[in-house]
Amino acid sequence: MATKSEKTREAILNTSYALFAEKGFKQVTMKDVCEATNMSRGGLYSHFSSTSLLFEALLQKITEKDALGFQERIEKKDSATAILEDTLNRMEDEMKHPEASLSLAMYEYAETVDSDLMERLNKDSEKKWKNLIRYGIDRGEFRDVNVSGIVNVILFSYQGVRMWSRIIPMKPETFRSIVDHVKNQLIGGWK
Amino acid sequence: MATKSEKTREAILNTSYALFAEKGFKQVTMKDVCEATNMSRGGLYSHFSSTSLLFEALLQKITEKDALGFQERIEKKDSATAILEDTLNRMEDEMKHPEASLSLAMYEYAETVDSDLMERLNKDSEKKWKNLIRYGIDRGEFRDVNVSGIVNVILFSYQGVRMWSRIIPMKPETFRSIVDHVKNQLIGGWK
Repeated sequence: MATKSEKTREAILNTSYALFAEKGFKQVTMKDVCEATNMSRGGLYSHFSSTSLLFEALLQKITEKDALGFQERIEKKDSATAILEDTLNRMEDEMKHPEASLSLAMYEYAETVDSDLMERLNKDSEKKWKNLIRYGIDRGEFRDVNVSGIVNVILFSYQGVRMWSRIIPMKPETFRSIVDHVKNQLIGGWK
Repeated sequence: MATKSEKTREAILNTSYALFAEKGFKQVTMKDVCEATNMSRGGLYSHFSSTSLLFEALLQKITEKDALGFQERIEKKDSATAILEDTLNRMEDEMKHPEASLSLAMYEYAETVDSDLMERLNKDSEKKWKNLIRYGIDRGEFRDVNVSGIVNVILFSYQGVRMWSRIIPMKPETFRSIVDHVKNQLIGGWK
């Protein structure tokens, strides 16, 4: 069971997610977080002493949860096609919600605080996707594609959409067409 | 022949390109442009009365030149493969130069001034690429791909790279793998 302190930490992370998605990284202050969480300065600082540490914990939480799901399913010998479809469906859902995109915040954080973390997260995503695709190829479920090519296309078209959908209106068909392109590459039949 | 005024205008655009690429849009002031171009305030203002107008003229110039090249070659019945390869080579070269990327400036401009222009430019790019791909399919040079899918993948993976390469180090292989993916989709043999 989560302790009270863990629950508070979770609540801070959830609330600050919305702040970072809305304002980016640079414009969020610890005062904003205090106000949004209804916490005293002392209470908040006992969990996180800066917006950098808070943002890092948030990204860590999101990406760990994500990577764990992938790896567990591969270890359980789940179908590669099912993992791919679930993941692409989730990406498509995320693309439909630009207001929840952390892209600008990640960009500003990397620009003002530290780019190593973004580099590491990017490498982790790359590794995660490469593992899945090789797993699907090994099981004979996926076509024998160029793994790096498709992984870069997945990662960067997703990032491109997440960033630009914040400022220009995009249609659901755009997201769908990207997701279908990836499916078609790997399992065919979605032309 | 270009008049002196046109030449000055060109010089302002070229110099301010570097400023916007370096600093984004929000942080560039008319004073910065005066200093970088060695012009008086009056001289500069006789050409452009704000950084918004300057940035708009710059984007207009870049995209018009770009679109014109495409359309002219299609009208001249050039090989679709040759147009594709030249364009992808240019995109690959651009990806190698994150320091010359206007992505952040475009994002900031859209956020602070007006997102209609970005929407229009995005639609123009989309149209330009769709025309080329349909032209290539009609000529039997390109595979009968899903046009929207590949166009969105091209545009957004390019945008994703242009934005993120500003903050995380990327390898030439990454750019190459994206470009090869596109070539492979359309003309095959680059797996």
